[in-house]
Amino acid sequence: MSSHFLGNSIKLENVYISSTGTTCGPLEFSGPLGAYFDKGYDDYHCGEKSFEKAERKMLRDSLDICLKREKLKPKDIDLFIGGDLMNQNTTVHYLARELPQPFIGIYGACSSFCLSMAISSLMIEAGFVDQVVAMVSSHNATAERQYRYPVEYGVQKKATTTFTATGAISTLLTNKPSSVRVEALTLGKVIDYSQDDPNDMGRAMAPAAYDTIMTHFQDLKRSFKDYDLVVTGDLSTYGHKILKEMMQRNKIDVVRYNDCGCLLYDIQQQEVFQGGSGCACSGLVTMGYLYPLLKEKKYKRVLIVATGALLSPMMSAQKDTIPSVAHAISLEVVE
Amino acid sequence: MSSHFLGNSIKLENVYISSTGTTCGPLEFSGPLGAYFDKGYDDYHCGEKSFEKAERKMLRDSLDICLKREKLKPKDIDLFIGGDLMNQNTTVHYLARELPQPFIGIYGACSSFCLSMAISSLMIEAGFVDQVVAMVSSHNATAERQYRYPVEYGVQKKATTTFTATGAISTLLTNKPSSVRVEALTLGKVIDYSQDDPNDMGRAMAPAAYDTIMTHFQDLKRSFKDYDLVVTGDLSTYGHKILKEMMQRNKIDVVRYNDCGCLLYDIQQQEVFQGGSGCACSGLVTMGYLYPLLKEKKYKRVLIVATGALLSPMMSAQKDTIPSVAHAISLEVVE
Repeated sequence: MSSHFLGNSIKLENVYISSTGTTCGPLEFSGPLGAYFDKGYDDYHCGEKSFEKAERKMLRDSLDICLKREKLKPKDIDLFIGGDLMNQNTTVHYLARELPQPFIGIYGACSSFCLSMAISSLMIEAGFVDQVVAMVSSHNATAERQYRYPVEYGVQKKATTTFTATGAISTLLTNKPSSVRVEALTLGKVIDYSQDDPNDMGRAMAPAAYDTIMTHFQDLKRSFKDYDLVVTGDLSTYGHKILKEMMQRNKIDVVRYNDCGCLLYDIQQQEVFQGGSGCACSGLVTMGYLYPLLKEKKYKRVLIVATGALLSPMMSAQKDTIPSVAHAISLEVVE
Repeated sequence: MSSHFLGNSIKLENVYISSTGTTCGPLEFSGPLGAYFDKGYDDYHCGEKSFEKAERKMLRDSLDICLKREKLKPKDIDLFIGGDLMNQNTTVHYLARELPQPFIGIYGACSSFCLSMAISSLMIEAGFVDQVVAMVSSHNATAERQYRYPVEYGVQKKATTTFTATGAISTLLTNKPSSVRVEALTLGKVIDYSQDDPNDMGRAMAPAAYDTIMTHFQDLKRSFKDYDLVVTGDLSTYGHKILKEMMQRNKIDVVRYNDCGCLLYDIQQQEVFQGGSGCACSGLVTMGYLYPLLKEKKYKRVLIVATGALLSPMMSAQKDTIPSVAHAISLEVVE
């Protein structure tokens, strides 16, 4: 019998990371973590005729890199689970036509990285399947034109905005022991603190990150000190600051905490406003940068709290606010 | 240890349906199955100021009806899993703000009913959680204006089109024995037969339904004869006919097969073109109509194959085709 959830969290015994593939756009590739990613593209079209097709190509490339490392083909995988920011999960679903195995589409906005990793992990932990690929992507130009305005319009941005990362991440999770495992996860509640500005997602998401982190600590009787690093997904400068303030107000000792949106770019030098966002932001930082550090045993255990603003432009037009969610996974070195 | 997938299917031992709540719009309520649904609304606004809010209200009402039957509150539920047809899964996510427990957003277009039931069932089968609510909704006016044109425009419809059902379904799945259980499920592959007409979804989805049904039969060594009824989700008249032709061409004996899109409405009398579609179509027919028939032991075992056209209007504009998927659950009377 598998474990049972403790509150909203569960400890896992049998889930390992076997391989990963990370691809990214030009800004991510020239950023401070660029050298960690498997492949970067010179431009936002990636040789394709539309931005949407470019995002799909990045995702396919990340999958091919991930599988090639383990000498596997898509037919060897039991199940694919993925999501992206496009309406109807266009990127993953249009790619999934090329995959000869079942596909589960999930949507958690920018939290989709941890959500896809969490559901994949649960499927393996239960013993239902042996090999699952979790996949997510985001693309600055596809997200901008869907959620706000096409980049080509050159609309002025508010200072509070974040910059959707361009990249794709495929991760192979299996029950076959390797050097890094998914040792615990926490599923998030949908939280809405009545923030209604779609140009300030960091602030909308901070309360969801707070709730998931505190729930994780409470469920597993842990604190920040039990991790070498805790990262949120894409709160970026403002949201990251708010989260710390919320913690301090509640007398929580915040140590070794950072945000993937602040790590992915050089916020001083690169024009990314408050920092990075999008499924690819937490995905690239986790699988491109933190996973190798875990493999090299520079970190023993890290907590990834991918945050998602479940913003609906239709609901914003109807004067509604922005619900948010955060899902967390804990990665640990296998001794 | 839980069971393992046999191909893309799995047999379940511990998943029971404890309760359900079904709400629907005026056309579904006055249709041939209307008397089976828990609540019907007189108009498409359900007393709300927008169609999107109306869809959310229908979903909340279905949840309240479902939980009230078992004298439960949302806080008693371990996990909520749901999806709808709106961009960003707006209906379920904006409702989830009101829920004090974790939420997993899934997207499989009209297949979301079976996808949410399948993932919920797997979570219970694994022993991870005890009580999960699977929830889906669709609304004719919200879907029309998002995928095609606002209903108010009065755009002429092609004869091949289907009619998105208005309704919401919440289903409580638990590990506590009851009279009907989820005994098996099959997760679908994304299939694309290069159909590119967004006004003819039945034909786009028929190959996905075919693949999932044949995979289900092959994995579990079954045929149509092992079921008192096999229903597809929303192929409606044309797709339903194509599916039968595909089966017959491959010398499969098709018996006791129908389509929820043909059952939900009186296609001769009600103006629904080829019949019903949408997450609510398979959901209403299954949980409103078939579930009581199972409880009364009029059926012993039924297979629900919810079909989803993963249509992206953006990709249609880019001349791409329509990928489809179908996920199946088998419901059985507990002797």
